[in-house]
Amino acid sequence: MLNRVRSAVAHLVSSGGTPPPRPKSPDLPNATSAPPAALPEAPRSPSAGAGGGSGAPAKTVDARASFSRPTFLQLSPGGLRRADDHAGRAVQSPPDTGRHLPWSTGYAEVINAGKSRHNEDQACCEVVYVEGRRSGTGAPKEPSRGQGLCFYYWGLFDGHAGGGAAKMASRLLHRHIREQLKDLVEILQDPSPPPLCLSSTPGAPSSFDPSHLVGPQSCWSSQKEVTHDSLVVGAIENAFRLMDEQMAWERRGYQVEGGCCALVVIYLLGKVYVANAGDSRAIIVRNGEIIPMSREFTPETERQRLQLLGFLKPELLGGEFTHLEFPRRIQPKELGQRMLYRDHNMTGWAYKKIEPEDLRFPLVCGEGKKARVMATIGVTRGLGDHSLKVCSSTLPIKPFLSCFPEVQVYDLTQYEHCPDDVLVLGTDGLWDVTSDCEVAATVDRVLSAYEPNDSSRYTALAQALVLGARGTPRDHGWRLPNNKLGSGDDISVFVIPLGGPGSYS
Amino acid sequence: MLNRVRSAVAHLVSSGGTPPPRPKSPDLPNATSAPPAALPEAPRSPSAGAGGGSGAPAKTVDARASFSRPTFLQLSPGGLRRADDHAGRAVQSPPDTGRHLPWSTGYAEVINAGKSRHNEDQACCEVVYVEGRRSGTGAPKEPSRGQGLCFYYWGLFDGHAGGGAAKMASRLLHRHIREQLKDLVEILQDPSPPPLCLSSTPGAPSSFDPSHLVGPQSCWSSQKEVTHDSLVVGAIENAFRLMDEQMAWERRGYQVEGGCCALVVIYLLGKVYVANAGDSRAIIVRNGEIIPMSREFTPETERQRLQLLGFLKPELLGGEFTHLEFPRRIQPKELGQRMLYRDHNMTGWAYKKIEPEDLRFPLVCGEGKKARVMATIGVTRGLGDHSLKVCSSTLPIKPFLSCFPEVQVYDLTQYEHCPDDVLVLGTDGLWDVTSDCEVAATVDRVLSAYEPNDSSRYTALAQALVLGARGTPRDHGWRLPNNKLGSGDDISVFVIPLGGPGSYS
Repeated sequence: MLNRVRSAVAHLVSSGGTPPPRPKSPDLPNATSAPPAALPEAPRSPSAGAGGGSGAPAKTVDARASFSRPTFLQLSPGGLRRADDHAGRAVQSPPDTGRHLPWSTGYAEVINAGKSRHNEDQACCEVVYVEGRRSGTGAPKEPSRGQGLCFYYWGLFDGHAGGGAAKMASRLLHRHIREQLKDLVEILQDPSPPPLCLSSTPGAPSSFDPSHLVGPQSCWSSQKEVTHDSLVVGAIENAFRLMDEQMAWERRGYQVEGGCCALVVIYLLGKVYVANAGDSRAIIVRNGEIIPMSREFTPETERQRLQLLGFLKPELLGGEFTHLEFPRRIQPKELGQRMLYRDHNMTGWAYKKIEPEDLRFPLVCGEGKKARVMATIGVTRGLGDHSLKVCSSTLPIKPFLSCFPEVQVYDLTQYEHCPDDVLVLGTDGLWDVTSDCEVAATVDRVLSAYEPNDSSRYTALAQALVLGARGTPRDHGWRLPNNKLGSGDDISVFVIPLGGPGSYS
Repeated sequence: MLNRVRSAVAHLVSSGGTPPPRPKSPDLPNATSAPPAALPEAPRSPSAGAGGGSGAPAKTVDARASFSRPTFLQLSPGGLRRADDHAGRAVQSPPDTGRHLPWSTGYAEVINAGKSRHNEDQACCEVVYVEGRRSGTGAPKEPSRGQGLCFYYWGLFDGHAGGGAAKMASRLLHRHIREQLKDLVEILQDPSPPPLCLSSTPGAPSSFDPSHLVGPQSCWSSQKEVTHDSLVVGAIENAFRLMDEQMAWERRGYQVEGGCCALVVIYLLGKVYVANAGDSRAIIVRNGEIIPMSREFTPETERQRLQLLGFLKPELLGGEFTHLEFPRRIQPKELGQRMLYRDHNMTGWAYKKIEPEDLRFPLVCGEGKKARVMATIGVTRGLGDHSLKVCSSTLPIKPFLSCFPEVQVYDLTQYEHCPDDVLVLGTDGLWDVTSDCEVAATVDRVLSAYEPNDSSRYTALAQALVLGARGTPRDHGWRLPNNKLGSGDDISVFVIPLGGPGSYS
């Protein structure tokens, strides 16, 4: 993420001091003010396939904070140095000789052109086994092996103001998801509608008789239909929330001095769930057609949510900001004139007389990649950022950020996919300089040059996408063939074949 | 609007008493706590074409509160009685012999089957002339005749808990829009980009030099581009807000004892603006293709906005409601069990342990036409409802309702429309029993039976749509040809030919 946090590092609470009070977040339910129970443990040693910890044991605080790339890249110490070289910007992919990524996934990444010391993107690709808990129990968790579920998992994490949050998320978010799914193992495998209420006594299903009800119930006499899909979506949403809470509590140990965008894909029981919090992007390219699978969350796309929060909770603006939007900075001498503005409930513009409070800095300002919340951060959803403050101020920004992803569901069984149909995930380093259509053209060009059963085709495609966004060094910069500037940001790309894991030779 | 407010009338503050304190609405900017300046006056006598006041002068409170139908129907006292007859449910349209509605518009309406004493829908169709104010002035308003603007205006207002709000809106909303557009007359006719700031001194344009700025401005060095369209959208949005404020201040005089949905269309300078606040609907049928031009705002579609407000401002829930959503009513004996829920930031469902506060009634409950906010109201946007309270409580509901419309813009010049291309506006009485596709089929069937230059074709289409939704009396009810129940609600329909006013014989 390039330049998306303005001098944020300089304003972070030093990791050596007392942790600041936990910021009051409007996104956290009341019930969770205590540390969340049963947090997934941080891995004690790097497991094969897990993101982070390339070669170095992760037992100590120091090791956790050290620079690393995803384990599946299998980088030697020399390879790690090359991956960390801003001048060469060598594209990294899993070695041909090693074991392949699950689901024949293609992957490639490249470090930024110097905007931060290390590559702040992280990635994870895993097959995760979920052991069921006996349904209907808040009591002892008895494993019911043999009835568990597997899900495939891909995660891209684009860090800002440091790589700590991205690294922590790449190691732990899938464990939070597994934890949330444990209660659902039996329910998801049962074709009947999910039970609305689970008895606290194992084996005793909760009974419900609407005729027992009294009071206003004309709008309330029936039950809402809840689908299996929506339970998985709810599990992912709560996993993001718990991951964010864990970051708040353990940020010193992990040196989580920044935040990260998170783009996560899960394949479970025939369906693909794409969860996005931030400005990464996922698209499906199917038979040449582009199907957007995510939306970006930025100060521009979330303007009205941010302004509403500032309007309802003016104390969060600290007397320094106004929740109104103006098309440019107002000068003091313009007091009394009439300026265009937008309030939280408007999509159009109107004129208003400039009052003294309008001279405050606007909560949301700027356009495109320069748009900012409180003049500081350019993404509005993601994990971490618990210590982020407004420049030259103690005003926390976290209350305006949401850790909740938007989840889109794609039914893999509703369409017969061919080997050239893919789901492409990329951090903003890819999308800043590459349109959806250009990605679709590259998909077509690269995949048609490989046999359908060639196991290297999806990694070749990921590499081509990363190279196409990075460009080549020319005229004192990284330039694309059309001589425009390439992306100087970290760039990471997953390519997931929708035809399934397949049998590639 | 059928049964969309639960016993609301019984809980309204009597119009004879002291007006209750103005409810604190999150939708009103701080600056507007004083009565809005320069409110358009209520019409002193019914003007041709204005909605309401059929024949009866509107000078007194009593006359304002009397039953009326849109003036353009030109109903005689006998005709008014027939229009008010729940048993016959005669479809009403402007007479063939009278002058036509502007823009060759078709219109038809029918009263409900007995759910309320009178037809609570109202309609307005007008050509409105906007006289410009000299730009850049907050000072004396000098008319600049000859440089004004005309807009065509259509409004459908679906009242609930009484017809007062719908009647008031049908008489005044277009005047609020005219008032908002007065400042824009010159700007909209000037092809150059709108000025961001208007000087308070006439003739002295505001100057701006970004180099004067100091402070954090990396996100702020440029100006936002503001389009002419977005000024019109802002004018419509603020007109809705001011209309709602006027209702709050004048509700006793107008006996505005309820609220109304508002669906408004404006044609101005080649573009059509469709503004919707409520559950009416507008669609374009163009060459057989359906283009949705509005979204409905209900407790279901606005669940997350409502829950967020309840979460951020728990005092609005009065200890009686929970902002969490549950798929059915929880019984006290289920305390401690685990129930599915959704919080404001979730689209999926998850289980949570039932706590005592979860036994409160949910802020949002029910499905489809039975969905309610605070067990009371089934629409979440519109005008009025300032006195609406929760059943058996003094808790105001207005803070959860928004008066702001969503505005969609359609450029009439981007497509060569034929006489069979139409914009159809209908209250929910139409859409409850008629799909978009069925409307498109009726458009095709009816219009193909008339010559393209027959002036009666659009009214015939509106009548066919109303008749098709009402059905015919059979088996103790109003039934459709497929024997399903027809709509027992008030039904009102405008048909606007997109080919323009045309020359119909």
